[in-house]
Amino acid sequence: MTIADISSFAAGQWITPGTGARAIASAITGAPIARAGNDALDVQAMLDHARTTGGPALRKMTFHDRARLLKALALHLREHRQALYDLSFDTGATQSDHLIDIDGGIGTMLVFASKGRKEMPDAQVFLDGDIEQLSRNGTFLGAHICTPLQGVAVHINAFNFPVWGMLEKLAPTLLAGVPAIVKPATATCYVTEACVRLMLESGLLPPGALQLVSGGLGDMLDHLTCQDAVAFTGSADTGLKLRSNPQILANSVRFTSEADSLNASILGHDATPGTAEFDLFVKEAAREMTTKAGQKCTAIRRIIAPETAIDALISALSSRLAKTVIGDPRDTATRMGALVSEAQKHDVLAKAALIATEAERVTPDAVLPDTGAFVSPMLFHCTTPDTAQHVHTTEAFGPVSTILPYRDTDHAIELANRGGGSLVASVITRDPETARAIALGAGAFHGRLYFNNRVSMAESTGHGSPLPHLTHGGPGRAGGGEEMGGIRGVKHYMQRTSIQGSPDILTAIGEKWVPGAREITSADHPFTRRFGDLVIGETLHTAPREITLADIEHFAHFTGDTFYAHMDEAAAKRNPFFPGQVAHGYLLLSFAAGLFVEPNEGPVLANTGLDSLRFMKPVEAGDSIEVRLTVKKKTKRNDEYGEVRWHVTLSNQSSELVAEYELLTMNAY
Amino acid sequence: MTIADISSFAAGQWITPGTGARAIASAITGAPIARAGNDALDVQAMLDHARTTGGPALRKMTFHDRARLLKALALHLREHRQALYDLSFDTGATQSDHLIDIDGGIGTMLVFASKGRKEMPDAQVFLDGDIEQLSRNGTFLGAHICTPLQGVAVHINAFNFPVWGMLEKLAPTLLAGVPAIVKPATATCYVTEACVRLMLESGLLPPGALQLVSGGLGDMLDHLTCQDAVAFTGSADTGLKLRSNPQILANSVRFTSEADSLNASILGHDATPGTAEFDLFVKEAAREMTTKAGQKCTAIRRIIAPETAIDALISALSSRLAKTVIGDPRDTATRMGALVSEAQKHDVLAKAALIATEAERVTPDAVLPDTGAFVSPMLFHCTTPDTAQHVHTTEAFGPVSTILPYRDTDHAIELANRGGGSLVASVITRDPETARAIALGAGAFHGRLYFNNRVSMAESTGHGSPLPHLTHGGPGRAGGGEEMGGIRGVKHYMQRTSIQGSPDILTAIGEKWVPGAREITSADHPFTRRFGDLVIGETLHTAPREITLADIEHFAHFTGDTFYAHMDEAAAKRNPFFPGQVAHGYLLLSFAAGLFVEPNEGPVLANTGLDSLRFMKPVEAGDSIEVRLTVKKKTKRNDEYGEVRWHVTLSNQSSELVAEYELLTMNAY
Repeated sequence: MTIADISSFAAGQWITPGTGARAIASAITGAPIARAGNDALDVQAMLDHARTTGGPALRKMTFHDRARLLKALALHLREHRQALYDLSFDTGATQSDHLIDIDGGIGTMLVFASKGRKEMPDAQVFLDGDIEQLSRNGTFLGAHICTPLQGVAVHINAFNFPVWGMLEKLAPTLLAGVPAIVKPATATCYVTEACVRLMLESGLLPPGALQLVSGGLGDMLDHLTCQDAVAFTGSADTGLKLRSNPQILANSVRFTSEADSLNASILGHDATPGTAEFDLFVKEAAREMTTKAGQKCTAIRRIIAPETAIDALISALSSRLAKTVIGDPRDTATRMGALVSEAQKHDVLAKAALIATEAERVTPDAVLPDTGAFVSPMLFHCTTPDTAQHVHTTEAFGPVSTILPYRDTDHAIELANRGGGSLVASVITRDPETARAIALGAGAFHGRLYFNNRVSMAESTGHGSPLPHLTHGGPGRAGGGEEMGGIRGVKHYMQRTSIQGSPDILTAIGEKWVPGAREITSADHPFTRRFGDLVIGETLHTAPREITLADIEHFAHFTGDTFYAHMDEAAAKRNPFFPGQVAHGYLLLSFAAGLFVEPNEGPVLANTGLDSLRFMKPVEAGDSIEVRLTVKKKTKRNDEYGEVRWHVTLSNQSSELVAEYELLTMNAY
Repeated sequence: MTIADISSFAAGQWITPGTGARAIASAITGAPIARAGNDALDVQAMLDHARTTGGPALRKMTFHDRARLLKALALHLREHRQALYDLSFDTGATQSDHLIDIDGGIGTMLVFASKGRKEMPDAQVFLDGDIEQLSRNGTFLGAHICTPLQGVAVHINAFNFPVWGMLEKLAPTLLAGVPAIVKPATATCYVTEACVRLMLESGLLPPGALQLVSGGLGDMLDHLTCQDAVAFTGSADTGLKLRSNPQILANSVRFTSEADSLNASILGHDATPGTAEFDLFVKEAAREMTTKAGQKCTAIRRIIAPETAIDALISALSSRLAKTVIGDPRDTATRMGALVSEAQKHDVLAKAALIATEAERVTPDAVLPDTGAFVSPMLFHCTTPDTAQHVHTTEAFGPVSTILPYRDTDHAIELANRGGGSLVASVITRDPETARAIALGAGAFHGRLYFNNRVSMAESTGHGSPLPHLTHGGPGRAGGGEEMGGIRGVKHYMQRTSIQGSPDILTAIGEKWVPGAREITSADHPFTRRFGDLVIGETLHTAPREITLADIEHFAHFTGDTFYAHMDEAAAKRNPFFPGQVAHGYLLLSFAAGLFVEPNEGPVLANTGLDSLRFMKPVEAGDSIEVRLTVKKKTKRNDEYGEVRWHVTLSNQSSELVAEYELLTMNAY
């Protein structure tokens, strides 16, 4: 068997391992399969390359451009995933584990690609939140923008997910417009290196957008500035060491950490043995213990169950675990593979021994293969959860978990919070009030709370699976960081800046028309102009239309909306908000459309929706309304159509605002 | 003159200074006026008191309860502000400075009170963002909640704003539901102590919600956990020291820092001498140098102007500064008071001397009072901004600023970014494209960008004023933190937790109905039920109504909306979105109201608005629609009314979704 040289990709060059390279063994056979190391690496050149080549190229693109890039990268990886599966078996992972790591990583990229298109503008500036009215006359306003950091993101990943671990950080980073330097854990870096090669060979990425360090980072962290960011996943000890770097502290370098933690799963008091919830709980607990041989940051380490259910639980869970087929992950019958290395095996066994000083092991040793870093699932039962220490603080990063009994929901919350901050806690209950009590009592200690029961179980995604839509990370022991969570995760690689200025200035920066900014009038009705020709601020003022009493009464009978305020002058006057009989809000909207619509075939294809409608002042018979319609924002959807968001105001004959809303149309390009 | 003993308020007791108390001198006379110190303070008892008494009491309240508390506190302080003015003169501050510190602090509290009522729910859980669809059938969903940290916020403040500095941190902390321990800088702690006494004596605060440390913090930071937070304002050096605390690092304790920085003001290339913008620039620069005698974290330290405007600028700015009346701040003619202390004066003069090694001083010494910590405004001109170091890194925390020439906008951006991260940069320009270029180029280095010109100048709030609506803080040198920014600042004291579960579970936790959750039917039409009686999930299903071709054509002619897709079968078929002639969206909305409205006088007083309307499927003649109307959220507005947000869906005869929106009504209590 040949031993593969695992390279780094630095400043545009592949650099093979140097003389001090370290051998990497197969988790299955223990034989060396690769070597990695990088004593020739020039970290300053890598940082410079990212900052001066990768960053500027990415920042020239819009969020939509970068979202399309992510999608193309993900599809390219999907096409070549078999090569990654093939390599990954030697990490000890089964085909099911590959689906989490490799397909999960690709899926995460696709979600960011989709959210980037849907939830971010086709622009270089992201507007965060609404306009803030800072002045009476509206000549001075506030807003918040996010723009990409002008440095580089350094990603330091854990060994357990060589692909997902990279992609879940890379996707939001690239979408933000920031280049990345990825440093995988050496034990599984051969899988990451193959994945990086696939992405680079695709030719999709601009030069400098992605670099790779196989082996150590050298003194790279000592060269970071306030425009850089470090994202770390791994052990709490390593996280603390990195976080304490003097340069990171002195320059307020962004540092986010996601450390494995003592995650809990709580069996609700309603989920007694015999219920669908009890069975679900057993199934999830067994799955979390054995997936990736328990080497997941989110795995369940503490199983918190009602005192009355403990015996049934031990019995059900240990018999389920006894059926776990352990062996070579290439064998399709295998349900649990090996730990990543002999070193990891020694560490897990040592920590399990610590837990055994406080808890009784309730599962026997399994039959294990002769070679490789295999261990048995180890389930413990601790009868003294309030006084025990190790069960709440010692994480054996393998198929190891401890059952802890609780008296009532408050006690369960107290035990869950004893972890000192966790990535996730799950709660299996059908009772919404129990769920609410745990959310209020344990929310502040957990980055994610996963509730499940018979209603949601068929579609639920599993206690241990962070999702790109939701934040991942937790307080305290879990590192105090936050990743993903949709666009939140993209903002971690951008600077939020509050901006103040006149409506014209804010419109120019945000590429979104702000009330008070310049109105642009064209010779043609804006509905006759194609998507590409319309400009932000383009405005139509309509003629006025009088609303008669006959209009109001006719509309009432035609639609069936005979609410008394429209029909009965005396009753309407008794209403605290109305001066007397008033027009329907929907009558005003409908007449407004009658005033601004261009009836003939043209580029406006459909009215697709309406947002933030507020009725400001009632309209009585004899009043008249006129409409102002302004292009607020344009979002290209494909080569044929684009969405136009119009700012619409209705005013009465005294120029008082009657209603305000945003109208959405789909326009031909 | 008596020397006041400045006490601490710890675990419900006022503790007078101990034997090691330090004397505090008047900035004006140099004579001792107070002493502070706390060798008897039990920091663990303070933390325990906050955690076990203050926190639980605050967490029992809703966001609206706490917003009302803030408003009452602010009004109480406003009533007693004269006492704070009287004390503040001895810090060297003028009456104009008091308006920034004392009235500014009270105003900040009022903005948080208002935003808490308007932008947060009357509940204990804050929903952050939208529901995430995680499953095809909608039985398993995701969302994000924020719940209060269960520890204590430790606020460490700077000497320059003894009231605002406390209140801008305290308001979001209390609104979040977290108790605070406030530690003012000793030099001006007598003003903070008086303000804390006013708040405590008001009787409005629950016990344990607010404690005060006058003097040093002892080893308090060594006792913090992942449920605590530290917010620091002050020098970069002190910030680094605090941030490096081993307990803070090891426990991922939240730490936010706001450090003074080398803020810049850029004169746009269009703002040539003689323009309104040039005059505005001179006025703002002079004001920033002299307000609080330049002791503001946000003051302009670097004045970046086109090479061609430098001579005119030096002339205009120095003649304006020459008119600054410097003296006893109790004298109403005084425009600039003293620095806070002799020590500060020595520090400022030493740093100005460093700057003088790279720049020429262009303003003469002013006539200063004989006693006290007075200094002259010192304007420098540096002709070598690219090679100079001190002008970009040395902050003289007094009335000191340096003019730097630039060649073009890119050069101006480069110079502004040389500060290594700033709280704010201002740009005086009328040109939107210049504003946009600077936002893109300098945004990532600045926490705030302040644009001003002739349009906005009458209503603008000043380069140096952080506003509660907008984020305050900046990257790198400015500390890397963020405060305020409306509800963003409240979230800094809460944990964001992603939650996953069934619609019923998410509805119970968020107190907001989620599609798919249980519908509750009442015997009565929901429009006949008062605000207090309606329950989340209460639902009305209407009868169906057929839409006829006559309806569509009649509606078109009545409203004037004769868009071809409603009128002309052949033309409609050519439209890519329509099967043929279709009903108007507004016709559907109007008929829907006709189906669900209860016509008689009752608790529903008005339809106030509508959000997130989306048309999903066209409706043709012969189709029928029916409506489902569900109580989504309730928000009490006062003792008489409350706002009800209804989730509304329109379906056709094949149960396909035709339209979906949220309707707002105001209902009698």
